[in-house]
Amino acid sequence: MKTLEQKLEKEILTINDFPKKGIAFKDLQSILSNPELVSDIVESFVNQIEKNVTVIVGLESRGFLFGMLIAKELGLPFVMLRKPGKLPPPVINLKYLKEYGSDSIEIREGVISENDKVHIHDDLLATGGSAKAAQDLIKKSGAEVSGFSFVMELPRLKGRDVLDSRSIVSLVKFNN
Amino acid sequence: MKTLEQKLEKEILTINDFPKKGIAFKDLQSILSNPELVSDIVESFVNQIEKNVTVIVGLESRGFLFGMLIAKELGLPFVMLRKPGKLPPPVINLKYLKEYGSDSIEIREGVISENDKVHIHDDLLATGGSAKAAQDLIKKSGAEVSGFSFVMELPRLKGRDVLDSRSIVSLVKFNN
Repeated sequence: MKTLEQKLEKEILTINDFPKKGIAFKDLQSILSNPELVSDIVESFVNQIEKNVTVIVGLESRGFLFGMLIAKELGLPFVMLRKPGKLPPPVINLKYLKEYGSDSIEIREGVISENDKVHIHDDLLATGGSAKAAQDLIKKSGAEVSGFSFVMELPRLKGRDVLDSRSIVSLVKFNN
Repeated sequence: MKTLEQKLEKEILTINDFPKKGIAFKDLQSILSNPELVSDIVESFVNQIEKNVTVIVGLESRGFLFGMLIAKELGLPFVMLRKPGKLPPPVINLKYLKEYGSDSIEIREGVISENDKVHIHDDLLATGGSAKAAQDLIKKSGAEVSGFSFVMELPRLKGRDVLDSRSIVSLVKFNN
């Protein structure tokens, strides 16, 4: 019988040179089209993430997909972390540097409290830039980051190294 | 005991003059922060949408939230309908007119078949522009639109009138 990691390796399509030359894009749609695999993924996340979590945060927009399923399964609040200008005021904003230029992310003020243990979810851990920005934004809002989860990870880009928490779940690793 | 519609009316915050003057923004975050309400919403959608549905489509990005939960609950594939340039090739693209200028949406080619009965989900039905674009894109891909669901509806903008299917579920209507 195949493990979940083996199933994901088999199911996830790779599209070369997207969104630009040299990038091997991993297509999340191939997972979403398979309801049995979606169930297995949610179960695996729920089994692996820290038990003290009080809130699930998902990064726009692909982090909304499994983030929402994890929150539903655990009966926890789900909080959207969005690109600037999408959330109504008041918001907490964090600017961060990217490979070229800078970007920022926002969370609605007051939706996370100082006592919260926050789990951050996204579809992919690559360089860790956006996951670190999410982490820093949660800290700025006064709460604690409990851990992270990702469907896919590209270990050669060393995203784990830029994150503070050591509780980092990823379900499948790609080396190309 | 309050009905789901009454609970939603009470929970959903209104932020005036966002994203621009004269618009009364309805804040979905207030729902997502309430796990019990999230469960009630999913249950209500699942009870009301057509039984012949074979695929759930969600519009980026807020349509991903409950779209994914509906698909999981029904054990159906979920398909992302995204803004241009986000999905890898090959895609099916549809351009449509907006109040000012035009926009386009995309779906991955081959993820929907001609035999599919497609349910389209988004958070809000306002003028119906993006829901109609989604409908037209599904038709272009050769499948049939079974119906629509939205958490919120603004009836004064008459979004229903531009949609072909008469199976349109919305859980709460706002008149301001």
